[in-house]
Amino acid sequence: MERPFSMAEYWDRIHNVQQSMGRAGIEVLLVADPANMNYLVGYDGWSFYVPQMVVVVGWDPEPYWIGRPQDANGARLTTWLSADHIRAYPETYIQSTDHHPMETVAALLRELHVDQRRIGLELDAYYFTAQSYLALQRFLPAATWLDASLLINWVRSVKSAAELALMREAAAIAQYAMETALAVIEPGVREADAAAQIFRAEIEGVGGLPGDYPAIVPLMPSMERTTASHLTWVDRSYQVGDVVNLELAGCRHRYHAPLARTLYLGTPPDDYRRLADVVLAGVDAALEAARPGAVCEEVEAAWRRSLAASGYEKASRLGYAVGVGYPPDWGEHTASLRAGDRTLLRPGMTFHLIAGMWVEPRGLEISETLAVTDTGVELLTHFTRDLLTKTEFPTGRSA
Amino acid sequence: MERPFSMAEYWDRIHNVQQSMGRAGIEVLLVADPANMNYLVGYDGWSFYVPQMVVVVGWDPEPYWIGRPQDANGARLTTWLSADHIRAYPETYIQSTDHHPMETVAALLRELHVDQRRIGLELDAYYFTAQSYLALQRFLPAATWLDASLLINWVRSVKSAAELALMREAAAIAQYAMETALAVIEPGVREADAAAQIFRAEIEGVGGLPGDYPAIVPLMPSMERTTASHLTWVDRSYQVGDVVNLELAGCRHRYHAPLARTLYLGTPPDDYRRLADVVLAGVDAALEAARPGAVCEEVEAAWRRSLAASGYEKASRLGYAVGVGYPPDWGEHTASLRAGDRTLLRPGMTFHLIAGMWVEPRGLEISETLAVTDTGVELLTHFTRDLLTKTEFPTGRSA
Repeated sequence: MERPFSMAEYWDRIHNVQQSMGRAGIEVLLVADPANMNYLVGYDGWSFYVPQMVVVVGWDPEPYWIGRPQDANGARLTTWLSADHIRAYPETYIQSTDHHPMETVAALLRELHVDQRRIGLELDAYYFTAQSYLALQRFLPAATWLDASLLINWVRSVKSAAELALMREAAAIAQYAMETALAVIEPGVREADAAAQIFRAEIEGVGGLPGDYPAIVPLMPSMERTTASHLTWVDRSYQVGDVVNLELAGCRHRYHAPLARTLYLGTPPDDYRRLADVVLAGVDAALEAARPGAVCEEVEAAWRRSLAASGYEKASRLGYAVGVGYPPDWGEHTASLRAGDRTLLRPGMTFHLIAGMWVEPRGLEISETLAVTDTGVELLTHFTRDLLTKTEFPTGRSA
Repeated sequence: MERPFSMAEYWDRIHNVQQSMGRAGIEVLLVADPANMNYLVGYDGWSFYVPQMVVVVGWDPEPYWIGRPQDANGARLTTWLSADHIRAYPETYIQSTDHHPMETVAALLRELHVDQRRIGLELDAYYFTAQSYLALQRFLPAATWLDASLLINWVRSVKSAAELALMREAAAIAQYAMETALAVIEPGVREADAAAQIFRAEIEGVGGLPGDYPAIVPLMPSMERTTASHLTWVDRSYQVGDVVNLELAGCRHRYHAPLARTLYLGTPPDDYRRLADVVLAGVDAALEAARPGAVCEEVEAAWRRSLAASGYEKASRLGYAVGVGYPPDWGEHTASLRAGDRTLLRPGMTFHLIAGMWVEPRGLEISETLAVTDTGVELLTHFTRDLLTKTEFPTGRSA
């Protein structure tokens, strides 16, 4: 199967991760985060609901993949690993009370004579459960354990030209999905029918380039549900006067470009239009402040100052690093655009800057996906950055 | 917001969970699995990518929900909990190195004077990371910790009439999605365009009932990729001679009915047709053996005997309990149809019986979602149970 990156790029990734391991005093890294597995060896399958691991030994350029037998076939088809570096635990270990897949991970470390080394674990990875952690401790009593949470995520933070190219393609899909949402949502249309068309657009893709499934389904609360940020569609039809928060993404080979806009069906009330203007001015101020050499909290401070002048504030962060991802999240969990985050912006870093105001009686969201360049930022997403409104409806109703 | 179940049903669930807690000597249960949170209090939001918890105290009929401030609004909109039972941790605790959301969970347990009790944890829940586990131990040093993995999952295993009704609706959506796949897949069509239409059908739903997002995206490997079970679409168009494994689901209010079929584009070779016949006979034998009073391994044994007569074997389990679910899985992780599983089949239990043969040179999958009745089983899914073939193509090509 064709992979989206050259072997040289994979070697660079392994090298950079091994450098980071060295600095952290980690000799062996157990990788449970599917995004990190994909980043290192190309593995791509919806198999993260059972335990699986990539094992990186600090001095071996070729990692090992361990998973379920039926998924080992998937590893042979999607990774660049040689046959001997793809291992499977017995099928009977799945959801068993007698055995645990980490037995096979432990056996591999013994085979490689690294079971008594300093071993890094992704203690905050979604699919590395407390039970897997306790099992590893039981099966490898002589190991020294270190927390390697986010070690690979930080290596991922600066994107290569090939990665940025995929994110631009993903952004074009996000734009197409948003255009689709804007075209389909109107009074009388069921929320689910709008969701169905957004999904279709996300997967169909644009320009002959198909979409991969985004790590998050289209978030699209309406009415009072816009005071919450993570709700999906409900069984109702849109009405004149509805507000709809749309947060969606395009995805190419697991690389994401999220995009959020708010749509008002009808003519927005004055106070809501004013909220939109305040948010738009804040986004402008934040984008102005984002450039190489600035730190994350300076971008958020520019937004905060702009908002404060109008009497608004926003408690939650203004954005976060974005890139490779699997459900449940496209965020990289490293840098955040918020007070206290002193991460230096460097060329090639990518962020989802999301100005989400989840306020009563109706919320509003406007976002962009951007890349830091040598001189400032490049917007990857391209879509009218304003409160979207529709006042003429083909069905003849108007507002 | 309207919830799909009566309050009487939610009280029953709480009561049954508290009974189970009592039998296990658990006084306080910390619920991290989003499916279990939904089952107990109705919470529904794509917010499981940050820590959140439902807290059940053994003698209090109303649990507590704890999450992020912006999601607390979602809890107010989707759960039946009173305002005082919905709590939020400070936004600054998100992906922070100084604080952890479990501090707020610990503070609630102190407020309720249960911080020194016997506390059950879902140690194998996807979104309860090792780091959350270690944080709880640090913040609640006087607690006694017990493994409560699957406690609620087992309570969920027997479905009510209202739950079965939702699963029948989900099955109708699965059938519609499979019809859509069969209609759209043909030589020259891109795999992504087929995926896009399957997604659309899953969400659009049927009979005026919209679909919820299934916990797993459409799995649809083609050609040699059918030797693996969890692959999605790739950037290619179908050709005459392709085999496509389709595993998809309908979902209603988080209740799933999965359905798998294999489609052959053209006339299948004899040996592949024979594999399909062996699998079909095995599924018949398994369904014949499934009835209340049988145990799970007897169902699998019937399948295994049927297969053995033809010289085939299947290492992986024949199925698993299914119901409420969030990504990454619609399975309940309790009973499996496999050797060694002595779980008694009881009326109201629901299973995804999946005869998946991930063999060289091409695999095959046939599945049904079923409910155990008073006398046998009810098939919830209804779709021609055979190897699907297409030999006439509208584009004029035939095979």
